[in-house]
Amino acid sequence: MESCQWGSTPDGGMNRLTLNDDDKRVREWFIAQVKQYGCAVTVDAVGNIFATRPGTNNALPPIGLGSHLDTQPAGGKYDGIVGVLSALEVLKSLHDNNVQTYAPIAVIDWTNEEGARFPPAMLGSGVWAGKFTPEYAYGRTDLKGAKLGDELKRIGFKGEVPASYEANPLSAHYEVHIEQGPVLEAENKPIAVVTGVQAITWFNVELRGREQHCGTTPMDRRADTLLAAAQMIVGINAVALSIPGALASVAVINSTPQSINTLASSVQFNIDARATDDATLARLEAALEQRCREVAAQSGVELRAWDRFWNAKRTVFDERMVGFVRESAAEGGFASRDIQSGAGHDSVYTAARVPTSMIFIRCKGGISHNPAEYSSPEDIAAGAQVLLGAVLKYDAYLKSQAK
Amino acid sequence: MESCQWGSTPDGGMNRLTLNDDDKRVREWFIAQVKQYGCAVTVDAVGNIFATRPGTNNALPPIGLGSHLDTQPAGGKYDGIVGVLSALEVLKSLHDNNVQTYAPIAVIDWTNEEGARFPPAMLGSGVWAGKFTPEYAYGRTDLKGAKLGDELKRIGFKGEVPASYEANPLSAHYEVHIEQGPVLEAENKPIAVVTGVQAITWFNVELRGREQHCGTTPMDRRADTLLAAAQMIVGINAVALSIPGALASVAVINSTPQSINTLASSVQFNIDARATDDATLARLEAALEQRCREVAAQSGVELRAWDRFWNAKRTVFDERMVGFVRESAAEGGFASRDIQSGAGHDSVYTAARVPTSMIFIRCKGGISHNPAEYSSPEDIAAGAQVLLGAVLKYDAYLKSQAK
Repeated sequence: MESCQWGSTPDGGMNRLTLNDDDKRVREWFIAQVKQYGCAVTVDAVGNIFATRPGTNNALPPIGLGSHLDTQPAGGKYDGIVGVLSALEVLKSLHDNNVQTYAPIAVIDWTNEEGARFPPAMLGSGVWAGKFTPEYAYGRTDLKGAKLGDELKRIGFKGEVPASYEANPLSAHYEVHIEQGPVLEAENKPIAVVTGVQAITWFNVELRGREQHCGTTPMDRRADTLLAAAQMIVGINAVALSIPGALASVAVINSTPQSINTLASSVQFNIDARATDDATLARLEAALEQRCREVAAQSGVELRAWDRFWNAKRTVFDERMVGFVRESAAEGGFASRDIQSGAGHDSVYTAARVPTSMIFIRCKGGISHNPAEYSSPEDIAAGAQVLLGAVLKYDAYLKSQAK
Repeated sequence: MESCQWGSTPDGGMNRLTLNDDDKRVREWFIAQVKQYGCAVTVDAVGNIFATRPGTNNALPPIGLGSHLDTQPAGGKYDGIVGVLSALEVLKSLHDNNVQTYAPIAVIDWTNEEGARFPPAMLGSGVWAGKFTPEYAYGRTDLKGAKLGDELKRIGFKGEVPASYEANPLSAHYEVHIEQGPVLEAENKPIAVVTGVQAITWFNVELRGREQHCGTTPMDRRADTLLAAAQMIVGINAVALSIPGALASVAVINSTPQSINTLASSVQFNIDARATDDATLARLEAALEQRCREVAAQSGVELRAWDRFWNAKRTVFDERMVGFVRESAAEGGFASRDIQSGAGHDSVYTAARVPTSMIFIRCKGGISHNPAEYSSPEDIAAGAQVLLGAVLKYDAYLKSQAK
């Protein structure tokens, strides 16, 4: 709650878009916190913050415990924030109990996980993992035309260290996150052992029809772009419902010229498509494109852009790290189950470079990206405790490997 | 074309939203034109401009020849502009030929006919006709929050004369306009005699669902506001297609929070509903509301607002004036047909107070509110000639009544 003083909204939610003034303030707060625990702070070239507590073998890259402090524009107080604060709690426990780890430990705040202000999502971890260049990240613009690179400089978080898994490596990456789904609540379990993340694709779709007068153009002589978009949105929903393991959503739409008595001539929308595996996602993508092309052909509206501008394949987390999470939950006496994440996380990108796994905690009603988002203090404590156990297990494993 | 130098767009269209700097410039140009023909210029309290040429009996209110110089944001060079310029041509013909009319003649540029910047449409003539108060007009705001009243002052067109059919009366109102529909072209006729205007209603619709994560919320546990809006738009189209003589269109949509991976929680859209008569419109309105309420109930989305914020009943034009247009077209040798207007015009409001009728001219492909809007010089000349004839006939009628 202390960290949520920056960006909180009257409805109990959060609006802390990446690199805005509130994000600057919570970053400064985070740095002040980790310095209390004797951490060295590194800010990389895209603003990712690494707070590193030394181990006995500092030649090893640190074990990363990361998530993100940015939120959706109408998001909640849990999401990535719980992940960073759980990691901070692990740090505090190690510090307060004078525990010396073998490997160094790095608590990480990744930049722009949400992608709400600067699409795409998970940009900071993506640059670190070499999926995007820093220049690509700098060039991302928000709706007002501000560039990510300029905003980094403005808030003083464009660091000197290269944003790179090679120049600034980790040994592993653990992440605590709220489930953002209804499964744990339904099964009355506080913890899920995350085995991987479903495959995701984002599309940008642009339609072009004709500006026509709403009063004088007969219903059968129209190239009504917004009507075509509506038919596509309905069709996209139907396609997703028809494929087991598939999800498809349209949440962004823009129509011009936005005049009540002139049919829209141009509409842009985005599709968020996900599936439990890559083959299902490929099938979903093909079916979505076919449906939208059919609607366009039938309505006389041109499908000007069908741009698959972001894709993340299914992620399968490291078996050893997943096992350590499962053992740690059992040792803590927490009921748990394995789960595949529906949402993307920074761990998707870290998993491409280093052993990675995640811990989900139960959240109320499965609600997320919403001011009503909530996890109980008990469940959050359970998540942090499982994280601590898993980190110590991985640290012991690293030590055993060195012998 | 001279008058379109202010607000023209590279695609051949016009973007001259009411009371912007281009509208100010074309108003100044209009005033300079009419002063050449010895007119007295009056600007009323909502910026309607009356250019009055005296007759022999100046105790009579003038015969009005009006239309509008504002355009849609992606409109064409014809629409209301042809109406004002045809009236200007009549004025020039009277002047050049030293014709002395019995009643004075007033060429009128009505403010904010389009309603594109400040909804609702036909606001200037509506205030003049006593359908809206000046205060209501002043308080209309554009998307940037600017108020109509402030913009009137800013461009220097908030006049001293009350905007009122009582304080500043007319004897009658004629208006030339492009058809904005395909009928004249299909029948190869340059002129239509407009007998009235179909009934129109504008709705504001607001929906409220839940922000939910697109990746973690199962398809069957959503209150997806944009999906519900899309289903309504598809349903609105189907309802209109099922009722003969009905039109319904959605051209404005706004969705929040506009984040690719968070379902929209709130969507606003407008419906433009029209019908050939009031009973059909009432039937259409009821069917639209029922369909939207059904979609809301089925999708778990709340229909927060169903606001019927503007309505104009079917207009039937003055029989005598309609007859004069018909005779004038015949005398000019122009093939014509009677037609009911699909679009609203300033003449809808003038018709509530004084005898009114309109002349439509053929336009290419029925295209309007579009940069591709076009009427040939020959057809525009025909419209102006029919207008001149009709005005002289009505003037003769007024003179005959005085005897």
